[in-house]
Amino acid sequence: MLGKDYEGQFCTLASALEVVGERWTLLVLRDAFYGVRRFSDFAVHLDIPRAVLSERLRSLVEHGVLERREDPERAGRHVYELTNAGRALWPALHALLRWGERFRSPRRHFAHAACGTRLDEHGACPACGKLPGPEDVQTRLAPGARSGRDDRVSLALSEPHRLLQPLA
Amino acid sequence: MLGKDYEGQFCTLASALEVVGERWTLLVLRDAFYGVRRFSDFAVHLDIPRAVLSERLRSLVEHGVLERREDPERAGRHVYELTNAGRALWPALHALLRWGERFRSPRRHFAHAACGTRLDEHGACPACGKLPGPEDVQTRLAPGARSGRDDRVSLALSEPHRLLQPLA
Repeated sequence: MLGKDYEGQFCTLASALEVVGERWTLLVLRDAFYGVRRFSDFAVHLDIPRAVLSERLRSLVEHGVLERREDPERAGRHVYELTNAGRALWPALHALLRWGERFRSPRRHFAHAACGTRLDEHGACPACGKLPGPEDVQTRLAPGARSGRDDRVSLALSEPHRLLQPLA
Repeated sequence: MLGKDYEGQFCTLASALEVVGERWTLLVLRDAFYGVRRFSDFAVHLDIPRAVLSERLRSLVEHGVLERREDPERAGRHVYELTNAGRALWPALHALLRWGERFRSPRRHFAHAACGTRLDEHGACPACGKLPGPEDVQTRLAPGARSGRDDRVSLALSEPHRLLQPLA
């Protein structure tokens, strides 16, 4: 009854949660939007057991949300990149982030990269009236926010960063 | 490491998932948007152990997403209703539904109640250009979809229904 599926729930939401509802999965996807692509970078930033991370990545690849391909820079290694289906999760991820910002803790802002205006709660740019895709969104820490982490991904993300741009 | 919190994750998304990321929680909230208010109605529709449902409702009340109050019609019983913070989860829920609809299984549509136009993936009405709140959204089964369930909540929701309107 509390397994991985939502058996008996005839529901579009349940079918989405079967893909992204498992613990840590949305944080893996968040990192993919931030430009994390390598297993070792997900691992240092998420700080979860490698077996759990492996399982989440495998499941996301299986469901067509991430693509696993040869690392062009390191023979024998792989990188994980968002597919079109994965990128289409941006509105959901952004809406959850905005909710967290409003009712929990504001730590990171998202702005339309072209004009620097913060996105509204629906992911639209109030200045241009456009709905930028993740590739046109820039993220930065909220004023006064500090991550308190010193892994290489957190350090890279302490500077403004355009989504989907691979981290150096 | 895999407990309820996301310790060490300095992140707005993690803080949101600490409230809504537990298994079944978003389905409980979905039902609240559909107008389910009573424990027994959540129970027949979600089909989960009552102890799990109790725990999820308790946690959502504790986090200020649901409010528990006296049932005006049944002495000694309670109803659960979305608070403002709970209603503010609508864009996130809708975005996940739209993603599930596009990449998993289309089963339910959401339209602007005033004009009948289906909402776009960001929850806006393409006809009016408005961003209706959940109280101005109507849900109906997708054409050809049938729930295959016969509990009283599923039966009520087989007809078009305005969100947040208590189920009869």
